[in-house]
Amino acid sequence: MWVGPLIERKRDGGSLEPQEWRDLIAAYTGGRVPDYQMAALLMAVYLNGMSAEETAALAGAMLDSGVRLRFDHLPVRCVDKHSTGGVGDKVSLVLAPLVASCGVAVPMISGRGLGHTGGTLDKLEAIPGFRTALSPEETVRQIESIGCAMIGQSEAIAPADRKLYALRDATATVESIPLIAASIMSKKLAEGIHGLVLDVKRGSGAFLPELEDELRLARTMIDLGQAHGCPTVALLTAMDRPLGRACGVALETEEAIAALRGEGPEDLMEVTYALGVEMLLLGGVASNPADARAALADALQSGRAAEKFRSVVAAQGGNPAVVDRPEILPQAAAVSVYSAPREGYVVRVEPRTIGRAIVAMGGGRRTMEDRIDPAVGFVIAVKPGDKVERGQPVASVYAASDGGLAVGAQALSRAIELADEPPGDVLPLVSHRVTAAGVEVLS
Amino acid sequence: MWVGPLIERKRDGGSLEPQEWRDLIAAYTGGRVPDYQMAALLMAVYLNGMSAEETAALAGAMLDSGVRLRFDHLPVRCVDKHSTGGVGDKVSLVLAPLVASCGVAVPMISGRGLGHTGGTLDKLEAIPGFRTALSPEETVRQIESIGCAMIGQSEAIAPADRKLYALRDATATVESIPLIAASIMSKKLAEGIHGLVLDVKRGSGAFLPELEDELRLARTMIDLGQAHGCPTVALLTAMDRPLGRACGVALETEEAIAALRGEGPEDLMEVTYALGVEMLLLGGVASNPADARAALADALQSGRAAEKFRSVVAAQGGNPAVVDRPEILPQAAAVSVYSAPREGYVVRVEPRTIGRAIVAMGGGRRTMEDRIDPAVGFVIAVKPGDKVERGQPVASVYAASDGGLAVGAQALSRAIELADEPPGDVLPLVSHRVTAAGVEVLS
Repeated sequence: MWVGPLIERKRDGGSLEPQEWRDLIAAYTGGRVPDYQMAALLMAVYLNGMSAEETAALAGAMLDSGVRLRFDHLPVRCVDKHSTGGVGDKVSLVLAPLVASCGVAVPMISGRGLGHTGGTLDKLEAIPGFRTALSPEETVRQIESIGCAMIGQSEAIAPADRKLYALRDATATVESIPLIAASIMSKKLAEGIHGLVLDVKRGSGAFLPELEDELRLARTMIDLGQAHGCPTVALLTAMDRPLGRACGVALETEEAIAALRGEGPEDLMEVTYALGVEMLLLGGVASNPADARAALADALQSGRAAEKFRSVVAAQGGNPAVVDRPEILPQAAAVSVYSAPREGYVVRVEPRTIGRAIVAMGGGRRTMEDRIDPAVGFVIAVKPGDKVERGQPVASVYAASDGGLAVGAQALSRAIELADEPPGDVLPLVSHRVTAAGVEVLS
Repeated sequence: MWVGPLIERKRDGGSLEPQEWRDLIAAYTGGRVPDYQMAALLMAVYLNGMSAEETAALAGAMLDSGVRLRFDHLPVRCVDKHSTGGVGDKVSLVLAPLVASCGVAVPMISGRGLGHTGGTLDKLEAIPGFRTALSPEETVRQIESIGCAMIGQSEAIAPADRKLYALRDATATVESIPLIAASIMSKKLAEGIHGLVLDVKRGSGAFLPELEDELRLARTMIDLGQAHGCPTVALLTAMDRPLGRACGVALETEEAIAALRGEGPEDLMEVTYALGVEMLLLGGVASNPADARAALADALQSGRAAEKFRSVVAAQGGNPAVVDRPEILPQAAAVSVYSAPREGYVVRVEPRTIGRAIVAMGGGRRTMEDRIDPAVGFVIAVKPGDKVERGQPVASVYAASDGGLAVGAQALSRAIELADEPPGDVLPLVSHRVTAAGVEVLS
């Protein structure tokens, strides 16, 4: 395939035809276009953008590069949720079994942590024996039997996206809204779902820092979902502070299990409820938000949600005892308490500082090849707006060594900012609801 | 080497430090930076540009990637000329021996033809036995003995440029002024020359179509030359029509030999004189343009220039008889005459159409791997402004077959435009002289 003229056209601000995108992606996935040509094209796309038609063609081409799960034979609808990623964001672990326990199937494909954000696969694999590498056939069978599967992107799902993502990661072309949207949606549409809820993170710890970009990403993904017959709704949620209290792989798994037993921290539960309501509405098992919320609350209180998680863990080879005995998760060798160095208001808990400290302590990845220590991390008991006394314990550090504890304590001293006055600029937890019809400002 | 942050910085419109360019180019040449990362960086450079400091650092790094010839032990100065390329541009073949016969050494490194423009190496290699692949040591010895060598860019000269140029060619990042300037100057500075004259082509057949870009390229290269202690002068010359009459590899060699014997077409001689004057001034063998021009005329009329070419051909393994018997050059199997289809004024002889026809007839390259047929091409007897009668022979086509003749005749019918009125927009042959001091408009 002669790619030069296509690179030139994107370089000069033009557009490729849908068929050109399909041919290009097929040739690239088949090894007939070298990485260096695709890298030049990606940089041109990054700097010059893509039209909506091009983005749809790219997403479709990546989707068509692999298998697509089919669930149209099920008596229930399949719905999934995707988050753009943040610190302390363990919502997927709670939401997938919770929604499945309400009668909507959830065939969830997740990723690993990279950079300052964590990944659902890592948190699941903290459970002894848990296997995330299910084949498409295994996934379909598990959805048929228990209505929920939590897996990684296998070789069979959107291989073009896997190959392109690795190249983007190496060529500083990740943070492009059309490329992000096409990448996410090609994987999610491959799940064969009937509806999708997007958790688009806002604030300093989010992938995209500006509200305008977050809304544009949400709308781009919603358009792609609609174009492929998958109704898609996005909620914009706060990532100017970590979500919940636990930050770190196994610590977040433990907090997710607590949430499934109805003992989750308030902010985590609020985001989980908001996203869950949308999933139940898309799944057709509730006709209005109040009913949906009641169904979610009942699933948590009755134990059905925790029970569904137990089934998923067992079905995927993990030790289901983890639901009752989270202490079988990897435990840190060293723990210390961090106390407030002064009295005052918490005005900031900076998620990037926390996320990067976890990477520095061995609990995250700089590159996809890195191995991680799932036991390290933080439990942070305070939120922006809280008033603390001098010497009051506000967080715990979990590390592999005394050196790690020192790194963690140092990070907390930078991340947790105290002042005489309460903060004025804390983001609302769930601020916008975006649908194909438009943007609704919630708070 | 961790290239991601460097790509990000160029992507976001920033600059790399000189040391970062040096480290990057050394790592890339050493195979420690993959092509795909360099391709993304090159596209970012193409779209966001480079500062003068960055361009100098890049040129210096590419120069330092290989050997640098040294001629400071010679009793004469070394000067070279570089053309940005055009159709019918055989000036190098005339100028190198001509200037050498006036007492300035010329260690000329040239390239091959690509796309619609021809290359000096191909024209030299049309001479039976001529060898352009001299080692640096052979080149120095030949300069010591006869004051002129005409060679290709060996593995030893600016290997970083060779590798980068191949990547740029494959990634639509060739036409970037700082990248072009750094590429040219890294090779020319490796020649160890004491002065350089640039022939920057203007008009529809030139690499850069806009005067503003041509001046910017000239100034960028002059700055790079000055920064490396190599005084550099640029002339802007016309490429809105082919230079001379012959277009095609061996046909141009033949015309260059005629020019060396004082029988060249007027426009070719005028450009040759203009560039030669600058070379003799830089070479310190003439103190003013009039003296320089007289020295050049004398070298041609006395036969010394042709004799110098004969020595170069012999020294590099070619058959020196070619100077007296150009019929030993490859001859086309089929020849036809093209006549004016109507009476009128020639208003255009479009060089790109001619250059592309030569490629289509097998006499040029689409990719560097293509083999060429040196015998094909055109001799075009008319220039814009000439008045012709209907049926008057205006050009000859030289081809490998009747099919090639048809392609050539078709191209001539498109390239040679006739009209009732003379053209109003023919470029002056030598229009601007650019030096470190500024731009002088000549005509």
